[in-house]
Amino acid sequence: MDDRCVSPLAYDNRPIGVFDSGLGGLTVARSIATSLSHESIYYVGDTKRCPYGPRSENEVRTFALQAGRWLEAHDVKIIVIACNTATAAALTVAQQTLDVPVIGVIAPGARAAINTTRTRKVGVLATELTVRSGAYTRAIQSLDAGVDVYGCPAPSFVNIVERELATGAHLQERWLEDGDIFDTPEIRSEVARTLSPIADTEVDTVVLGCTHFPLLAGPIRHALGTGVRVVSSAEETTRELKDILHRRGQLAAADVEPQHRFATTSDNIAEFAAAGSFIFGQPLKSIVHVDLGELEEMYRR
Amino acid sequence: MDDRCVSPLAYDNRPIGVFDSGLGGLTVARSIATSLSHESIYYVGDTKRCPYGPRSENEVRTFALQAGRWLEAHDVKIIVIACNTATAAALTVAQQTLDVPVIGVIAPGARAAINTTRTRKVGVLATELTVRSGAYTRAIQSLDAGVDVYGCPAPSFVNIVERELATGAHLQERWLEDGDIFDTPEIRSEVARTLSPIADTEVDTVVLGCTHFPLLAGPIRHALGTGVRVVSSAEETTRELKDILHRRGQLAAADVEPQHRFATTSDNIAEFAAAGSFIFGQPLKSIVHVDLGELEEMYRR
Repeated sequence: MDDRCVSPLAYDNRPIGVFDSGLGGLTVARSIATSLSHESIYYVGDTKRCPYGPRSENEVRTFALQAGRWLEAHDVKIIVIACNTATAAALTVAQQTLDVPVIGVIAPGARAAINTTRTRKVGVLATELTVRSGAYTRAIQSLDAGVDVYGCPAPSFVNIVERELATGAHLQERWLEDGDIFDTPEIRSEVARTLSPIADTEVDTVVLGCTHFPLLAGPIRHALGTGVRVVSSAEETTRELKDILHRRGQLAAADVEPQHRFATTSDNIAEFAAAGSFIFGQPLKSIVHVDLGELEEMYRR
Repeated sequence: MDDRCVSPLAYDNRPIGVFDSGLGGLTVARSIATSLSHESIYYVGDTKRCPYGPRSENEVRTFALQAGRWLEAHDVKIIVIACNTATAAALTVAQQTLDVPVIGVIAPGARAAINTTRTRKVGVLATELTVRSGAYTRAIQSLDAGVDVYGCPAPSFVNIVERELATGAHLQERWLEDGDIFDTPEIRSEVARTLSPIADTEVDTVVLGCTHFPLLAGPIRHALGTGVRVVSSAEETTRELKDILHRRGQLAAADVEPQHRFATTSDNIAEFAAAGSFIFGQPLKSIVHVDLGELEEMYRR
């Protein structure tokens, strides 16, 4: 029976691959780096082809498989699709196609929302596309068919974050701390306007279904009040990852100094570094440019 | 916004409802009583109509809803369907119909199996019916579409347990400890024969997909060897329950002495008490008989 035994390694120091269409997934990477402090991360942001929202499902699948193969070639132990659009479109095919295991950000957030709600009414804050895809509703109702899901599209939230990143990150030259600089009176009222439809429901739990939204956690919590619990897909995905690595005996050894690496398809590495360091909460020291041609060679439809 | 706030209770001393077609669910109740030591349990075993296996899905749904309504009427805070057959047939409708939240035993076991496997090949040990229902395969592949599931029907395992219960429980007059009395050379070879098809696969993780099977954990582990991890649905359901009660602020207060109560549709309470105490690991002190007529009044198709 020995030949089919899993290697009894108690640790695995290979990096965790994290993939996003751009910078948003760095909220997930940040959460991983904070909670799993010995793990190394290899992050790929497909900034040049960002945003994925307006693209076809097929295109997003191809891009995700390209990045997945690229991360596999860089010997990651697991891949996290740190993007709600890409998870909705490409998680299943990535799991079926890639050799390395792949997780997304939707299932962990959905499970946490169900386990949190007492009114059994859950709000999902996401881009219009993610709301329309119904991916959260399916994930939530497959675990509890009695939970009502209120999709709340918040397209302006990504714009707010992008706008603040374009100014804040460069001007202030510091890392984001607890989303504080994104919590101004103007942003508060902008966010509150978008969230007002939720006030008319019995929703007591809201999932942040877009990787940009943890950056607006302050104004979102303020708008929803203390009666509504906010579930971050980023944090829940990190919890799931921790459970997985723990159960598989694949956590990095405790004496390992993590080495985070970043790759972007953007031509402007300085811009990626500035906004990225801001979101990641520490300087992105090791950034490489990946040519789209190189990615395309990894996987063709 | 206050009127839609969830009550900020930090604890909830109402019992956890646990429902099974008979005695098997007491392995789940036992796991709950062990891990959540302040929680009170109200257990309903529909022994008179056991086993559910040969019944139609509609019938099992009706029985589950009857028991669910009965538990609701006894003011439980959550219901656990501690039976794989009933979870496969009735969880969704119970979640849609009952006012109290309901969880089953399949999703927690499926998630744990995915998070454990490194070969991405998972075995499911269950009754023929549960294997045929495909419920585990669906639950596993909805979370990881790249995991292969090997259903291993083990109909004889329930017979072994029932046979041992019929003798062991009465003769030995002691509670089960670590499944030891079910771990004889004869049982070992009987179990090994059933599990031999799994040896030809790369399965590294096996879910016990029947509530009777934790009683055979010893011989099962022996047959599978150290290269295969055994996931108990009972233990994983308890973990999920803990996460739910913790997130909802519904754990019982730490100064509460739990009061476990048991109800059975069997006419022979002494028999239920003997075998039941043996499985539960402590004497079933408070047992009531529930008339089928009373259950039928709770819910009609």
